[in-house]
Amino acid sequence: MLTFDISTSLDGFVAGVGPTLESPLGNGGEQLHEWVFGLAAWRKPHGLDGSEQGPDNDIVAEQLASTGAAIMGRRMFSGGQGPWEDDPNAAGWWGDSPPFGYPVFVLTQHAREAETYANGTSFTFVTEGIEPALEQARAAAGDRDVSIAGGASVVQQYLRAGLVDEFQVHVAPVLLGDGVHLFGRLGLGPRDVEIARVVSSPSVTHLRYRVTRPPAA
Amino acid sequence: MLTFDISTSLDGFVAGVGPTLESPLGNGGEQLHEWVFGLAAWRKPHGLDGSEQGPDNDIVAEQLASTGAAIMGRRMFSGGQGPWEDDPNAAGWWGDSPPFGYPVFVLTQHAREAETYANGTSFTFVTEGIEPALEQARAAAGDRDVSIAGGASVVQQYLRAGLVDEFQVHVAPVLLGDGVHLFGRLGLGPRDVEIARVVSSPSVTHLRYRVTRPPAA
Repeated sequence: MLTFDISTSLDGFVAGVGPTLESPLGNGGEQLHEWVFGLAAWRKPHGLDGSEQGPDNDIVAEQLASTGAAIMGRRMFSGGQGPWEDDPNAAGWWGDSPPFGYPVFVLTQHAREAETYANGTSFTFVTEGIEPALEQARAAAGDRDVSIAGGASVVQQYLRAGLVDEFQVHVAPVLLGDGVHLFGRLGLGPRDVEIARVVSSPSVTHLRYRVTRPPAA
Repeated sequence: MLTFDISTSLDGFVAGVGPTLESPLGNGGEQLHEWVFGLAAWRKPHGLDGSEQGPDNDIVAEQLASTGAAIMGRRMFSGGQGPWEDDPNAAGWWGDSPPFGYPVFVLTQHAREAETYANGTSFTFVTEGIEPALEQARAAAGDRDVSIAGGASVVQQYLRAGLVDEFQVHVAPVLLGDGVHLFGRLGLGPRDVEIARVVSSPSVTHLRYRVTRPPAA
């Protein structure tokens, strides 16, 4: 199953305005992710102590347990926008111990050697497009899901292609007022989805949907 | 208290593309409101039989009971976009028995005689701007809330002015892909809100928020 999990503002932005080196998520963008930083399930793969439990933690733990491989865009691999944005050879942003623990397939136009890390994370660079990347990720994921890690433009490409099965939006209680839209103007007609599950806490609302009517190819 | 209640698509649109006479909510826009049409609390003020109960009905009944007056834009008064869009004297779209039952204040640039209906609805046309309209609506509402009926641009004007206290977004399970954004690019910095309540059914998710940090005037 192809999924994505992404935090957005109430007004539908996944990053604020003007991402910079100091503020890679843009103005206010860090507020989208505040809900996750204290959670045990998030802190452990990042090598941090912490034991915050509850419904938000269950959501994160579930997502980690169900993911067998991920797909991300090259900008997300290199840490968002910045001076390196147009450099296809820019180093990864994720350090010596990327917090995934599963194979990650990076969409890029430039071939590049794969990278493998001790904790099970690998980065494989795919130049053939979104469908071949999905095939490779599915093979790597086995029985588990393939998750689109981001950014928004990669999510939109898979939605347009009708390849997404389910997704979960974590709606943070903030109005960013401007930034990078998650869905944007997809350039498709209206498309139904089904509400699969709603979980809420005082910090965030998790909306899970099933795509019911993929477009004709 | 100043509030608004509005149905949006999952991608944040309150109307689809290209509103026309036949499709005043734009392509796919009627799907935003499907959740409401069967509900007893909605059908009764529209003069229709119907007895669908449940959490969605409770939400609508609550909103009707708490509203003492409303504010709407001139385009909503005249039924959305269309050939009449630029005609300040266009007739109202709401027929002989507008389904409100309370005073409605219409923002317009053209003075016009007030209209009163047997069921308690009145339309008063306010040319002095959003704050005088709010003052008049508060006086008419008494102990009850003033609700911004729409459209999106009116909601945005009151949000920008820091005048909204609480609001509820009814998120319909559809991706419209394009249309009229509820929040759009508000032209303000990030602003926190608090999650006041989340209610979900298979048809729609009701997200209620409290505005915690109005901007400095």
